[in-house]
Amino acid sequence: MSAERFGIGLLGHGTVGKAFDELLAERADEIERFNGRRPVISGVLTRSRGQFEEVLAGADLLVELMGGLEPAREYLLQAMHAGKDVVTANKQLLSQHGEELFETARAEGVRLRFEAAVAGAVPVVRVLEESLSATPIERIHGIVNGTTNFILTRMAQGSSYEEALAEAQRVGYAEADPSDDVSGRDAAAKMAILARLAFGSPVHLDDVRYEGIEHLRTDDLEYARELGLGLRLIGTAERRQGGLSVRVHPTFLYGGHPLATISGPFNAVTVESEAITELTLSGPGAGGRQTASAVLGDVVSVMTGGARPPAPPLKLELIEDVESAFYLHLDVADRSGVLASVTKVLGEHDVSIKSVVQHGMGERARLVMVTHQVLESRMRTAIAEVAEFDFVRSPPRAIRVIEEEFL
Amino acid sequence: MSAERFGIGLLGHGTVGKAFDELLAERADEIERFNGRRPVISGVLTRSRGQFEEVLAGADLLVELMGGLEPAREYLLQAMHAGKDVVTANKQLLSQHGEELFETARAEGVRLRFEAAVAGAVPVVRVLEESLSATPIERIHGIVNGTTNFILTRMAQGSSYEEALAEAQRVGYAEADPSDDVSGRDAAAKMAILARLAFGSPVHLDDVRYEGIEHLRTDDLEYARELGLGLRLIGTAERRQGGLSVRVHPTFLYGGHPLATISGPFNAVTVESEAITELTLSGPGAGGRQTASAVLGDVVSVMTGGARPPAPPLKLELIEDVESAFYLHLDVADRSGVLASVTKVLGEHDVSIKSVVQHGMGERARLVMVTHQVLESRMRTAIAEVAEFDFVRSPPRAIRVIEEEFL
Repeated sequence: MSAERFGIGLLGHGTVGKAFDELLAERADEIERFNGRRPVISGVLTRSRGQFEEVLAGADLLVELMGGLEPAREYLLQAMHAGKDVVTANKQLLSQHGEELFETARAEGVRLRFEAAVAGAVPVVRVLEESLSATPIERIHGIVNGTTNFILTRMAQGSSYEEALAEAQRVGYAEADPSDDVSGRDAAAKMAILARLAFGSPVHLDDVRYEGIEHLRTDDLEYARELGLGLRLIGTAERRQGGLSVRVHPTFLYGGHPLATISGPFNAVTVESEAITELTLSGPGAGGRQTASAVLGDVVSVMTGGARPPAPPLKLELIEDVESAFYLHLDVADRSGVLASVTKVLGEHDVSIKSVVQHGMGERARLVMVTHQVLESRMRTAIAEVAEFDFVRSPPRAIRVIEEEFL
Repeated sequence: MSAERFGIGLLGHGTVGKAFDELLAERADEIERFNGRRPVISGVLTRSRGQFEEVLAGADLLVELMGGLEPAREYLLQAMHAGKDVVTANKQLLSQHGEELFETARAEGVRLRFEAAVAGAVPVVRVLEESLSATPIERIHGIVNGTTNFILTRMAQGSSYEEALAEAQRVGYAEADPSDDVSGRDAAAKMAILARLAFGSPVHLDDVRYEGIEHLRTDDLEYARELGLGLRLIGTAERRQGGLSVRVHPTFLYGGHPLATISGPFNAVTVESEAITELTLSGPGAGGRQTASAVLGDVVSVMTGGARPPAPPLKLELIEDVESAFYLHLDVADRSGVLASVTKVLGEHDVSIKSVVQHGMGERARLVMVTHQVLESRMRTAIAEVAEFDFVRSPPRAIRVIEEEFL
C-alpha cells in the first residue's frame, strides 16, 4: 500500500532547483512518516523542457526557483488563481511585486511562502510570522548579504576592498558582476521583504534607501577598531516617529552587539520587541543546499497546514530622515584650533560628540570621532559645512554607528 | 458584529500566568485581525479559585503554567483525552513524563506545544519542528540556563563562584535555593526535551548525564583565557556511533564558536546539520514576559492550525561513553621530568596533547593542557593514574572543550 502523493511542480532547475530535487529525494521517507503524504516532483519546467499548464495541472503546490521578474510573476499569479499554494525564493520579485502577489494569495486563500528569499537557511520569516505574532516588533537589524559580509571580514583583516572582492569571486561568494551585492541593492530587496513581514506594511524596493560598500577603505576599519567598533553592511527596519524606516548602510557596531561577531559569508538578523527584548538568528547565507533546505521547509509547512494566507496590509508612513549616531573621519592639517573649529560647526547643527581620537602626523592629522544620535539631514548639512574649512584636506568620511543598547 | 471567540483555559496564575493574561489582552486585536477569531481567557484555575472540569469544558485550548509534576500531568492528560489542544511551559513534566504526554497527544490527534519549556523566548522548538524537518539534525549545542550563564560571565570578569551566585540572587536571576540551576539539572531537563524533538527518540531526564558549575574556580577561567577559551555550561545532544548522546557539562569553547559570545542571562542554541551547516538562535532566557510571549506564540500557532500532533518515536540507543577534547589542569611540584611523566601516562591511554602552558612558580607549578578528542572513559582512567604521581599536589581538574569546527 503506497502513501498518498503530494505533487510539487518545480519551475527552474538550476543550482537551487537541482539541490532541492536531491534534498527532497533524501527526505521524502521522513516527511511521509510524520505527514502521511509523500512529496514528489510531479513536473519540472525549464527553458528547454516542460509546459507550464501541464506542470501546474499536475501539482498540489508550485515551487518557483527560476529567478527574475518575468515569467516568474505571471506563473505565480496563474498558480494562485488556480487555487494552488506557492513557494518562491525570488527576492527581486517579492520586493518589486510583493503587494500584487500577497493580495492575490489573500484573495484566493492560498499560501505564499518565501523563507529562502531572505536570509538563506536562517529561518527568520518563519520566526517573524509565527513566534512573534505574540509581540509587536520594534526593530530589525540584519546582515542579509553574505558576499559583502565576507568582503568586510577580509578588509578587517587588512585586505583592500579590491583584494577582498577578488578573493570573494575566486571562492564563489561573489559573482563576476558583483554590483547587486556590493551596491547594497540585494540587501535592500531583502529588507523590503522583512519589513513587510514584520510590520505588515507594504514596502517596495524603491522605498528602501541603500548605500553599498564600494567606497569603504581599509583605513576606516583600522580607525574604527581603535574606537572598539566593527564594520558590517546592516539593513534596518524600524518604527520611527509613528512611521516606518527601512534602509541599508555600512554601519559600525560596538563589540557587544550580537551582529558584531558575525563573520564571513554568514547571515544574521536581530529582532527587537518590548516583550522579548532581543532575539538573534544566524547561519549560512545563500548556497544551493542551504537555500534548498529553506524551500523544502516551506513545502513541509504547507503540507502540514501550518502557513496561512497573508493578512491585509496596515499602511505605515515611510520615514526618510531618521536619527543615527555617526563615525566621522576628517583628514586635516595639523594645526591648533582645528578640533575647536570642527566641534563648533557640529554643535551649531546639534551634532554632539561622544568620543574622539586625534592622530597628529606632521603636516597631516586625522580626526576620528563618534557622535551621539542626530537627524541625518542635520549631519549632512554639518558635514558639508565642515568640508569648507581650508584645513580639511579630503572629503569627510561619515559612517553610521549602532550604539550598544542591550547590556 | 463580534468575532468568534477562541477560549483559553488557564491553569496557574503566578508570574508567567499573569504576564500571559496581560500580553493576551494587548495582542487580542492583532491576533483577531489575521486569524478571524478572538482569543480570550475562558477560565482560570489556581489553588484557591476555579474548578478544573469547568475550565476544561469552557476552553478550546488549555494553557498549563502551574509547574510541578502533579496535578499538571493529570490535567494535561484529561484535557487531551477530551480532545483539547494543550500548551505548557513545564520542563520538569515534559522531561519526566514526555513519552506519556506525546503518546496521548498522538493517540487523540491533538496538539501539544511547549516552546516556553526550553529556551525562554528563543524559538528553538518551532525552528526544530518546522524548518528542519527538511534536514536531518546531527548535533545541538545549547546554553539553556540563564542563571549559570550569568554566573560564569561574572566569574570570567574575576568574581568568585560565591560572589557571582550571590549577585545572581540579588538581581533575581537565581533562586534562594539555586541547586536545580547550578547542578545542571535544569539544563539537563531542557536538553532531554530538545533531544526528543530533534532526533525523534524518547529521552528521559534520567538518561541525561549532567555536571554543574559549583566546583569551578575563577582560576580555571583565567588559565583558559590564556589558551583562547571561554567557559559555558553547554548542553549537547548529538548522533554518535549510530546512537544518541545527551549530556550537560561545563565546557570550554574556542573564541570563534557562536556560543562563546553569549553573555549574561541569555540562552542560545546552535543546530548543526549537513544541509544547513550551522544555525544559531539566541535571546533572553526565562522572564515572565518572555515566557508569556513564547506561550502566546504557541497558542497562535494552534489557532492558525500550524502545529501538528507529535510523530511516533524512532528509538535510538543512548550512548554514554563519547569522545571529547579536554582541558586538564595539574598542580605539580616544579621539578624536571614532570611534563615527560605526565605525557607518557596520557599517551598510554591514547590521550594526545594539542596545546600546553606551563607556569613554573618555585616549589609549585601549573601545567595546563588541551587534549585532542578521546573517549571519556579513557580520559578518566588516565587522570586517575596521573593523580597517583607524588609530584601532583592537588586533584587534577578536567573540563571538556569544544573545538572549532566551522571557520
